[in-house]
Amino acid sequence: MKKSLRYIYQHQKELSILGGIAALLGWDQMTYMPLSGTSRRSEQSAFLSHLIHEKVISDTLWYHLTKLSKQSIFDKLSNKDQIVIQRLKKDVHKARKVPSDFIKRVTKTTTMAYSAWEYARKKKDFSIFSSLLEKIIELELEYCHYINIPGHLYDNLLDDYEEGMTTKTLQREFSYLKKKLITLLKKITSSTSYQKQQDVDFTIPKEIQQELCQIVLKHMKLPKKRTRIDVSTHPFTTSIGYDDVRITTNFERDDSMFSFFSTVHEGGHALYELGLPRGKFKDTIISDAPSLGIHESQSRFWENMIAKNKNFWDYFLPLFRKKIPNKLRSVTNDEWYRMINQVKPSLIRVEADELTYCLHIILRFDIEIQLIEQNITVHELPHIWNEKMEQIIGLTPENDTDGVLQDMHWSGGSFGYFPTYAIGSIYAAQLFQRLTTLLPEINIQIKTGTFSEIVTWLHKHVYQFGRTMSSENIIQRACGEGLNSKIFLEYLQDKYFKLYLT
Amino acid sequence: MKKSLRYIYQHQKELSILGGIAALLGWDQMTYMPLSGTSRRSEQSAFLSHLIHEKVISDTLWYHLTKLSKQSIFDKLSNKDQIVIQRLKKDVHKARKVPSDFIKRVTKTTTMAYSAWEYARKKKDFSIFSSLLEKIIELELEYCHYINIPGHLYDNLLDDYEEGMTTKTLQREFSYLKKKLITLLKKITSSTSYQKQQDVDFTIPKEIQQELCQIVLKHMKLPKKRTRIDVSTHPFTTSIGYDDVRITTNFERDDSMFSFFSTVHEGGHALYELGLPRGKFKDTIISDAPSLGIHESQSRFWENMIAKNKNFWDYFLPLFRKKIPNKLRSVTNDEWYRMINQVKPSLIRVEADELTYCLHIILRFDIEIQLIEQNITVHELPHIWNEKMEQIIGLTPENDTDGVLQDMHWSGGSFGYFPTYAIGSIYAAQLFQRLTTLLPEINIQIKTGTFSEIVTWLHKHVYQFGRTMSSENIIQRACGEGLNSKIFLEYLQDKYFKLYLT
Repeated sequence: MKKSLRYIYQHQKELSILGGIAALLGWDQMTYMPLSGTSRRSEQSAFLSHLIHEKVISDTLWYHLTKLSKQSIFDKLSNKDQIVIQRLKKDVHKARKVPSDFIKRVTKTTTMAYSAWEYARKKKDFSIFSSLLEKIIELELEYCHYINIPGHLYDNLLDDYEEGMTTKTLQREFSYLKKKLITLLKKITSSTSYQKQQDVDFTIPKEIQQELCQIVLKHMKLPKKRTRIDVSTHPFTTSIGYDDVRITTNFERDDSMFSFFSTVHEGGHALYELGLPRGKFKDTIISDAPSLGIHESQSRFWENMIAKNKNFWDYFLPLFRKKIPNKLRSVTNDEWYRMINQVKPSLIRVEADELTYCLHIILRFDIEIQLIEQNITVHELPHIWNEKMEQIIGLTPENDTDGVLQDMHWSGGSFGYFPTYAIGSIYAAQLFQRLTTLLPEINIQIKTGTFSEIVTWLHKHVYQFGRTMSSENIIQRACGEGLNSKIFLEYLQDKYFKLYLT
Repeated sequence: MKKSLRYIYQHQKELSILGGIAALLGWDQMTYMPLSGTSRRSEQSAFLSHLIHEKVISDTLWYHLTKLSKQSIFDKLSNKDQIVIQRLKKDVHKARKVPSDFIKRVTKTTTMAYSAWEYARKKKDFSIFSSLLEKIIELELEYCHYINIPGHLYDNLLDDYEEGMTTKTLQREFSYLKKKLITLLKKITSSTSYQKQQDVDFTIPKEIQQELCQIVLKHMKLPKKRTRIDVSTHPFTTSIGYDDVRITTNFERDDSMFSFFSTVHEGGHALYELGLPRGKFKDTIISDAPSLGIHESQSRFWENMIAKNKNFWDYFLPLFRKKIPNKLRSVTNDEWYRMINQVKPSLIRVEADELTYCLHIILRFDIEIQLIEQNITVHELPHIWNEKMEQIIGLTPENDTDGVLQDMHWSGGSFGYFPTYAIGSIYAAQLFQRLTTLLPEINIQIKTGTFSEIVTWLHKHVYQFGRTMSSENIIQRACGEGLNSKIFLEYLQDKYFKLYLT
């Protein structure tokens, strides 16, 4: 028993070390790698992925896991060991269901599909991508049969990103949310305030953007010694090690506030990563987030509930005014708050505002379900996409690049990923509602740029659990109930009624 | 035969991939890693080193290598395969001589020794470091017995850094060079020019230093897509992949010219790395430099023979004047040339000028030989060091930190490394002499900042060979003879006589 436990903990530590190395390869590729380094970098990353996969599915690991899982032995394990073994066995069991040959086929197909997707985008022509997307969907279906979770086929895909979540729950929550959001959006877009709304055009010099990002991260209590911020095309957060969590942003966007809000967003991810359990769970499978949805809840919590909160600007607007006096001297707090929260229905998900964002996700979720249920064909996709976009957002893409080709996710075979963005938004609202109900003084603290009590609360109610329980359980414990889009909707209604309809 | 060959080439490719990953971990640690990332980074690097070592000494590899080395099979191999198998077998054979347990003991001792060395430096007290240094020397001797190359014991250590070089050759070349350099130095330091020589005090703003570094790298034909330059405490060059070679410099030194000359130095290393054989030798053991000495010859060639050459400043001084007009307007070409080539006997190797640098190396070489021959004890080292320093350079360290404790090499067990710095200087002079004899127009090209023909020549005579032959063979082919310190001495005499004695 002791030998098996030693083996398993050493094994997890090695996976953790390799995971950090793989993360560094990815980070470097997105930030500093010279252009021509791409080809060797792909080989390096593929080599590591293969090594990690081989380790996960190794027969020796499986032998020790099954041995320790025997009831007579399992009962003698400490509570900690039991949690670790259970979680790990579940993951390994799942990984072992998938034949190595299948993984090779997926890698080959998605590599080609990514190139085809890029080219199709350039040519604004979905048909360039469609036959490979068909292949990917076949592979997704094959994968579902390997995994074979009871329930909806799509549950098998969802489980990779949002463990334990079901298609049934999402269909219930998302259909409610869709209906209500469309109604709310229509009310807003027909309001006088919306009609009179104007684009605000102002730029913040790069150096000042950088300074403002540093300031807000400091307020969020990101420790300088354990983090850094760099530049990449698309912002992201990655953990190289427990004390080495890195975020990126971009200062070159047309929208001068992009770097600030994306930094707050990634800062939320980073705080979560930095707060994941160490101590007895260090270098185990437990020291990780239980799902992408809850990870995204942390970034959206900070970006939307905190940095797009009116109170937040009581502290930060004067600071912005000091840094950019000529441009912001005459802007009132109210004008500024309206500006950063403008509702602007758009065709592009990554440019969507807080209110319409989830509609973009639900559109993709609906399509993914229909593809997996084989109710629609790939061939019909552009047409279906455009029709749904018109229904939901009220706009029709002029070409496939602004429509069905806009996201890279499908080219990589990431079906089941999109819903986690909406789950994140909903969880974030639930956490914020609970936090401010329990501790109304938080609103006052936000007015002074003081977030330490928020971080402490998130630590106690989210970060510290790691993967000891599912996301739904964490939210249930913290908020008294699991995923509830009604709370999110109420939050949006309250905020956007005040902005547009009063 | 085919199966064995396939195995061996795949194996080398994996080692090449892993080597690049390890290089990235090192690069990141020295450039961007957050402070607290150190502990996990050590684990990541150690894990990879272990993985690489296990791969090198694997029995399967050895099986295929011995199989292919059987005369009847070997004779049937292509010339390329024969070269690869021979080289690889030699390396693997050597690695397999060393017990794994020994490597663990070395790692443990050097880790402790490095900390002790750091602390001893802080306290300026050699005795804090001495007992661990004694242990390291015992380990070095143990290592010599495992490797067991016929000849001097020290040859076993030298061979790790300068394959094929012998202690006997170095003793002959270095004792000649030492004698002659001491005489030359005495002549210079008693000259009127030297007596009148004054420290020049000027600073170049960081941004302009950066710009000048970029300009000189462009002239050296370093391709932007395959390289980058960053900042680290000590400058270095590293290869992450064939098309991803990175150099670093430092803009914070007191000497404003440090960044420029160190960039040229590292640029020389980078050009070599970028020029190493690909094609049929890609991802084989051949696609590497055959020794540290020849690698160093490339950096010193560019730093000393090119960038500290009078002709070089015909082009670059006007450019410097344009960038820093106030400070350099009144400086003549001759004054500038004298300033950047000032002889200044110093206690510290890394601050030494071109003329005295090799004396610092020879001092260390003499001491290493005596330690390995067990003619002196670690206990006597500070005394011996100071005495030798007085004899050679004419200065006595006031404390151990400025004396025997100044370099980290011994704490890491790198005995046999120091001589490669002097070998590099000598080879560089030999290459420059041959190049300018064959192609005198090179001197004119240097005057116009044109270095493409130099790069082409180095490619043809050094880079393209990789490890197909030893450094000595490469130099013999290029210059008509192997290591010859007389050529280096003549170069120095000619240059410094003109500067100080005419």
